[in-house]
Amino acid sequence: MKGHTIGELRIGQSASFTKTISEHDVYTFAGVTGDLNPAHIDEVYAKGTQFRGRIAHGMLSAGLISAVIGMQLPGPGTIYVGQELSFRAPVRIGDTITATVTVEQLDPGRNRAVLRTVCTDQDGTCVVDGTTRIMPPKE
Amino acid sequence: MKGHTIGELRIGQSASFTKTISEHDVYTFAGVTGDLNPAHIDEVYAKGTQFRGRIAHGMLSAGLISAVIGMQLPGPGTIYVGQELSFRAPVRIGDTITATVTVEQLDPGRNRAVLRTVCTDQDGTCVVDGTTRIMPPKE
Amino acid sequence: MKGHTIGELRIGQSASFTKTISEHDVYTFAGVTGDLNPAHIDEVYAKGTQFRGRIAHGMLSAGLISAVIGMQLPGPGTIYVGQELSFRAPVRIGDTITATVTVEQLDPGRNRAVLRTVCTDQDGTCVVDGTTRIMPPKE
Amino acid sequence: MKGHTIGELRIGQSASFTKTISEHDVYTFAGVTGDLNPAHIDEVYAKGTQFRGRIAHGMLSAGLISAVIGMQLPGPGTIYVGQELSFRAPVRIGDTITATVTVEQLDPGRNRAVLRTVCTDQDGTCVVDGTTRIMPPKE
Repeated sequence: MKGHTIGELRIGQSASFTKTISEHDVYTFAGVTGDLNPAHIDEVYAKGTQFRGRIAHGMLSAGLISAVIGMQLPGPGTIYVGQELSFRAPVRIGDTITATVTVEQLDPGRNRAVLRTVCTDQDGTCVVDGTTRIMPPKE
Repeated sequence: MKGHTIGELRIGQSASFTKTISEHDVYTFAGVTGDLNPAHIDEVYAKGTQFRGRIAHGMLSAGLISAVIGMQLPGPGTIYVGQELSFRAPVRIGDTITATVTVEQLDPGRNRAVLRTVCTDQDGTCVVDGTTRIMPPKE
Repeated sequence: MKGHTIGELRIGQSASFTKTISEHDVYTFAGVTGDLNPAHIDEVYAKGTQFRGRIAHGMLSAGLISAVIGMQLPGPGTIYVGQELSFRAPVRIGDTITATVTVEQLDPGRNRAVLRTVCTDQDGTCVVDGTTRIMPPKE
Repeated sequence: MKGHTIGELRIGQSASFTKTISEHDVYTFAGVTGDLNPAHIDEVYAKGTQFRGRIAHGMLSAGLISAVIGMQLPGPGTIYVGQELSFRAPVRIGDTITATVTVEQLDPGRNRAVLRTVCTDQDGTCVVDGTTRIMPPKE
């Protein structure tokens, strides 16, 4: 139950996790974070917005990224230093989102790595783009 | 149910939301995002880490920030453009986290604003620091 | 709040519980157990399988059996000794599943009973078949 | 996102998943399955039983087994044929349970395998023992 150390990572290595985002996911995320923005939980309001319906929280997609980092690449023992996110397109209830993490930079001296973090939907549209700075688990 | 337009915002304006992070929150967040990293759900493993117990997901704190932005400042109708996060300290089950959002930059011509986003615990320790780029709701 | 003792049970006695399995049920079950198998939570993947869509966890149907045993027959105080399950057909989101438990064997000397446990869907198709070994509550 | 085919499995191969069982897990499992047996959700009642407090559902531990089979060994694409479970000891709220799956028999001609499935607690006590019959994903 230990993730990859920096010596085991290589530039270009990647991993991903896919989930169809359900109404349950959006409502549960709303309840836990307190983000009850009507864009997420009020269909009447949301129909009147530019998105024409309820959308998922951007941070829910970010959570899928966190799942890949904490469980696969580098995996358990990784310390999350920072995350930069750009929200490119809305995620609607029923969209199938794939979070993909790719190793971009490795700094073995400081035990730091930079990973590209991208979420795409079932049509390949990029919905979230970003990078994360992490410390992989030590030997 | 409409948030503040850019003309209604002023530099230094702030709003916040506070929640005691429960085991329920961490477990539910794990289930919805798929982030079942043992640091979050395995107390035996977590006791052996530098944090000496289970910690909350960084993105759960980020969700509290999202709650302030989407519900208070600027509020409903805001479009989330991007978020930059630095994770400064662990959040443990039982910690009471306050997410505070403060207006830092306003660009009325492009209808863009930059907000400082900080999460602190019950002792005033900064656990998450960052900035967010948003588009406030239009007139 | 005490279930039936072995002296109160008779061969052929039965009880049942019915629930329409929602997307919420499947997603919540996935989150609690950690079983994020794409067959359950990734509609794009699941459409490409022989089941042509997401299916419920077999253990979710088994949970309905457990509900009948623990709440009705024999009811509170029953000790679960063992369960044998055969998964006969997929359960899809929206299917209405009835778990039925029937007394098959009684051993008053050892305070043991064997129950037949069957789950059927709205069309009468058997989706789960099996038997359970239990100890009914004592006098 | 495809698990191991029968040709890739070998006798003795194993995988596991660990979770500290929280009150949230037990209550959520109760709500989804309808198993509101007081042994699980009524502390006053449960204090008067031989277990001296609320215990987790046996099928919740079985769900952790399902997580290992569906996600790791053999992984996605596996078809669950049957499961035999013996409940050996109670799981209490706060126990850390490890579900371990080990390949015991392989029948490449019929594409069938038998796996040993064991759940142990933080002290190494076996709480659930059993075997599962599965069909690994095809080439």
